[in-house]
Amino acid sequence: KEGTILKDELNSNKTLVISNTNREFLVFDANNYDKKQKIKRGPQIILAKDLGYIASRTAITKDSFIVEAGGGSGAATIFFAQIAKKVHTYEIVEDHFKLIERNLKYMEIENARVNLGDLAEHIENEKEIDLLFLDMPEPITILEKNLTCVKSGAYIVCYVPSISQIQNISNYIKTKENEFYLEEITEVILRHWKVSDRVSRPEHRKEIDHTAFLVFIRKI
Amino acid sequence: KEGTILKDELNSNKTLVISNTNREFLVFDANNYDKKQKIKRGPQIILAKDLGYIASRTAITKDSFIVEAGGGSGAATIFFAQIAKKVHTYEIVEDHFKLIERNLKYMEIENARVNLGDLAEHIENEKEIDLLFLDMPEPITILEKNLTCVKSGAYIVCYVPSISQIQNISNYIKTKENEFYLEEITEVILRHWKVSDRVSRPEHRKEIDHTAFLVFIRKI
Amino acid sequence: KEGTILKDELNSNKTLVISNTNREFLVFDANNYDKKQKIKRGPQIILAKDLGYIASRTAITKDSFIVEAGGGSGAATIFFAQIAKKVHTYEIVEDHFKLIERNLKYMEIENARVNLGDLAEHIENEKEIDLLFLDMPEPITILEKNLTCVKSGAYIVCYVPSISQIQNISNYIKTKENEFYLEEITEVILRHWKVSDRVSRPEHRKEIDHTAFLVFIRKI
Amino acid sequence: KEGTILKDELNSNKTLVISNTNREFLVFDANNYDKKQKIKRGPQIILAKDLGYIASRTAITKDSFIVEAGGGSGAATIFFAQIAKKVHTYEIVEDHFKLIERNLKYMEIENARVNLGDLAEHIENEKEIDLLFLDMPEPITILEKNLTCVKSGAYIVCYVPSISQIQNISNYIKTKENEFYLEEITEVILRHWKVSDRVSRPEHRKEIDHTAFLVFIRKI
Repeated sequence: KEGTILKDELNSNKTLVISNTNREFLVFDANNYDKKQKIKRGPQIILAKDLGYIASRTAITKDSFIVEAGGGSGAATIFFAQIAKKVHTYEIVEDHFKLIERNLKYMEIENARVNLGDLAEHIENEKEIDLLFLDMPEPITILEKNLTCVKSGAYIVCYVPSISQIQNISNYIKTKENEFYLEEITEVILRHWKVSDRVSRPEHRKEIDHTAFLVFIRKI
Repeated sequence: KEGTILKDELNSNKTLVISNTNREFLVFDANNYDKKQKIKRGPQIILAKDLGYIASRTAITKDSFIVEAGGGSGAATIFFAQIAKKVHTYEIVEDHFKLIERNLKYMEIENARVNLGDLAEHIENEKEIDLLFLDMPEPITILEKNLTCVKSGAYIVCYVPSISQIQNISNYIKTKENEFYLEEITEVILRHWKVSDRVSRPEHRKEIDHTAFLVFIRKI
Repeated sequence: KEGTILKDELNSNKTLVISNTNREFLVFDANNYDKKQKIKRGPQIILAKDLGYIASRTAITKDSFIVEAGGGSGAATIFFAQIAKKVHTYEIVEDHFKLIERNLKYMEIENARVNLGDLAEHIENEKEIDLLFLDMPEPITILEKNLTCVKSGAYIVCYVPSISQIQNISNYIKTKENEFYLEEITEVILRHWKVSDRVSRPEHRKEIDHTAFLVFIRKI
Repeated sequence: KEGTILKDELNSNKTLVISNTNREFLVFDANNYDKKQKIKRGPQIILAKDLGYIASRTAITKDSFIVEAGGGSGAATIFFAQIAKKVHTYEIVEDHFKLIERNLKYMEIENARVNLGDLAEHIENEKEIDLLFLDMPEPITILEKNLTCVKSGAYIVCYVPSISQIQNISNYIKTKENEFYLEEITEVILRHWKVSDRVSRPEHRKEIDHTAFLVFIRKI
């Protein structure tokens, strides 16, 4: 769109190249973040703001085993797999399942396994879970199961767009107070800034600002 | 403060124990997050909200090498070390240096090394850096150095409390446009919620809400 | 607390006076805002952030007639009375009723009348209302009444702390769609800044940040 | 766009009418807010969120005299005139001046006078100002003048989009500490909600969220 750049120019060691339309381009190596931006998108993906806080708040490490329901495009799967030891993902929609498989391959992820199917029906096959991440409209269908596969003290995180869903979760947990502890409900909000020579102000918002609430539940 | 609990009770498999003051306590295993809450604090520590977004936005993985200046209490060092392959930290205040060493030991971190001294004087000893994290009042003292040790396309993240500091960074980067690209300036804001049977509202704030701005700079 | 200042000093035309403890004080005339800060407080008062948006969003003018339920300390009553033509307030708690009367007198308000009693029982005495402001836990008790006293197109504003209350209001309005239109639900959030010579950052929060949601309903 | 409605239908007393495309419309009287939405817009207008907080924070009443510079489309002028006793507005751009005149006429405002010209050159003609509102890029050109026309204790409010402008104002005020007191710097942020039967969540933002910072200065 901005014109063409000679391949020789790009392969040289220059950091500034000039296109045939006389526009300047900075050249630097793509990194893991850039690569992720290019994964094929199907359903809405989970943003960095939410994934980052889930990782830091639940304190997962490279020794963690993470189980996830509702993979979407695989953005969360990729993020978790690049940090943790092992990730198992369950996805009920076949098209999404294929998309996640494809994106994991593109990102060269080898420690994540996608399963076509409903986690509620397969949860008894998992064990020693450090983080159970539920990106699905009705996470209670999972909370209702026997969750001895989740380690004592480990986190179950629900990603839900609406307060109404949190009310349902909160009410359900009250009926199982010896099994779950609702520790925190959080929204992560980003504010981007423009700071240049003479102007310093919040950026006029380009993206949606509400994604979902994060519900942090402790397995007892 | 709440009375005493018999050790036998705690060591049993019960999840609900009762203290001598007749109060009930839920018992579950401490996890990595709980353990981190107990590190000895000196200077103000970086919060989970900021660490999480740095990790997800820069897309660090368990293969990453991170160099950090201004370790404080070691909260960032511990977080990065538990995710990444290797972390080098530089701290100029001797008391803080000792505190970080002690906290790394307490957390059983083996892939992080703390150095007593100014990163500006030692940067040439590092190489192939995937993330350079600068938690210091004047990050320009580092940006002025020869930063060939930072990989092309990798991130330099400055953690600065004031817009005035961002203005200085932004102005400095304008003078080195072939070396740095200022990609994003972000504040991470959390909103905690209370959702129970009849009440659903934002929590009355318990903690400070402004910590710092995150400045994401790309090495070219 | 800071020492004493001679009355002669204060009554002089100086703008800078010095106390016996050698501290400097600026002297300027108190204005309407300062005076309001001194009203006697009983129940939690409505803050300037919420009152201001109610006034500008409902576009009341000095010709408006405002009816209010749940006066609290009278902060809203005073604010509305100083702008609008006439205000009628209903308060069911006798102590609050007396407090409002006292504060109206202190502020020398003459176009507001406080009534001891429940608005639900007296609403048929009012007519031609330009703004009906409901600061009460269950505003539906008013919405259930025959509200021909509220002008067509005029606003009914509910001030409610919890999402759960809005859900009730929203559900109720669905049953009376030819009488009410739910136009907007808004939270007003303030962010205070500190900007001085070398530092420019959000202030560390001193006050509670969540007060209530404002529900703007249109009478049809 | 949605079809046509018979004039007879609209003029009847029905609250629900049906268009020729079989869509339903609620009918209610337009109020002052609706009318304001229709004023002719030139330069960006000041939003209700900012106007409301200015009114409540400076505690203007129907006895107030307000002087304003930089009228834009007249939105602030109309808002202030409908509340206060008298408003004088100064606008340097002739097209904007005409637009304001036209909008004041449309809104039937009689207590506001627009002047074509720079307030800095005419400020000595004003006296006993209760609120001086400066919506201009360089409010210091006014602060530099002899401002005995502003009552002691009254507010000067600057409306400025950028932190950099506040830094200039703050630095200037330091040089005139016996004349001005910088009392508060505030951003007003609105959050709109969608609450219906099964969904309760923040609305996906439709409008810009940053407008300007409000700087409240006290005249000594």
